[in-house]
Amino acid sequence: MREAYQSDLRHLVDDLVDMASMVETALKDATAALLESDLALAERVIAADQHIDQRQLDLDEKIVELLARQSPVATDLRLLVASLRMSSSLERMGDLCEHVALVARRSHPDSAVPEQHRAQIAKMAELGGTAIREAATVIAERDLALAAQVEKNDDQIDELLLEISREISRGEGYSNSEVIDLTLLIRFYERLGDHAVSLVRRVGFLVTGDSLDTLSSKTDVEEF
Amino acid sequence: MREAYQSDLRHLVDDLVDMASMVETALKDATAALLESDLALAERVIAADQHIDQRQLDLDEKIVELLARQSPVATDLRLLVASLRMSSSLERMGDLCEHVALVARRSHPDSAVPEQHRAQIAKMAELGGTAIREAATVIAERDLALAAQVEKNDDQIDELLLEISREISRGEGYSNSEVIDLTLLIRFYERLGDHAVSLVRRVGFLVTGDSLDTLSSKTDVEEF
Repeated sequence: MREAYQSDLRHLVDDLVDMASMVETALKDATAALLESDLALAERVIAADQHIDQRQLDLDEKIVELLARQSPVATDLRLLVASLRMSSSLERMGDLCEHVALVARRSHPDSAVPEQHRAQIAKMAELGGTAIREAATVIAERDLALAAQVEKNDDQIDELLLEISREISRGEGYSNSEVIDLTLLIRFYERLGDHAVSLVRRVGFLVTGDSLDTLSSKTDVEEF
Repeated sequence: MREAYQSDLRHLVDDLVDMASMVETALKDATAALLESDLALAERVIAADQHIDQRQLDLDEKIVELLARQSPVATDLRLLVASLRMSSSLERMGDLCEHVALVARRSHPDSAVPEQHRAQIAKMAELGGTAIREAATVIAERDLALAAQVEKNDDQIDELLLEISREISRGEGYSNSEVIDLTLLIRFYERLGDHAVSLVRRVGFLVTGDSLDTLSSKTDVEEF
């Protein structure tokens, strides 16, 4: 019985890592759909989000079952509660990828991203992808040195958001629709980075046992 | 012992209702700060958000303690898990109010909201305030008829978002900064409404015991 329980706990971690991998794929595909105006790919990302949602529901049911059957305390209880929160973050990250794909679909056959911002958006997405991959490794291996790297990545994402936002504010030749879409897009990428930070902070909490204070959610960029 | 435990569970509900009331105040004040370019009020909302954050941390600690001490099952366990999720939603709603205040502060002494959109933004905020108040009543009294009303309110918020967004897209005379700020603002109000819907859906889940499927988070407006 006890052995099965330990195996269940390990599976939880595997499930979280799997969800992160689904999100990473969604982000990569959504960004490709956006930058290459690929309607079919956008549709695939939009359709695939329900699989991420389903994974969260399955995971949550497992967690509630484990709480009910095993009455965990101490470290195990903290792992279960943290897993509930992490599955929420991952589900929301999936939604954000879907939103990028929705902007791509709405703009098709044009691209929502004007030429001069393509490299910046591609960079935001690349940093986001790295953050998700690293967050998954942090979850799997509890590597807190890598957690610091995720925070740094996120700072770079925030800087790109501010850079793009400033360029739009001062720039000319944008249609209002373009400004709306770009504003939403850079916010989606920024929130993805924030959630990656939240994920690794939760792992930090599990490893160090620090107070819940460290668990407050990563705040958005203030200036935006 | 058992009696103390039941009293603890009731207190959880009170705490959630209190948090909702703090969010309602934050929303009202943030919107007033925005529409009346009231810098001091904006600063107060920004400073007050840490109290909402702290309430969430306190509530989460209580919940983890109850899970550890009481090993709840069935209805009680579901209430505790739902409370964890509801406290997250409320904390995030507080952040969104803070974001509105941050836009107000950044725009001061001007208003971020052009004259022609003031009534619409005021209406979005009013609907959001009603949704939070009604969600609190749903949490306190498990009134599922009122839950339906929250969903209707949210539909109206979504409609206003799309209306404003269309008007900006087709309109002229906006600066790019104005479009950025308005885009963010209407998204903040929309997300507030979404979280209110998530809150009442969680209560619905507690009352009816439906599958976790009904718990999937309220999705954003697709067209935006």
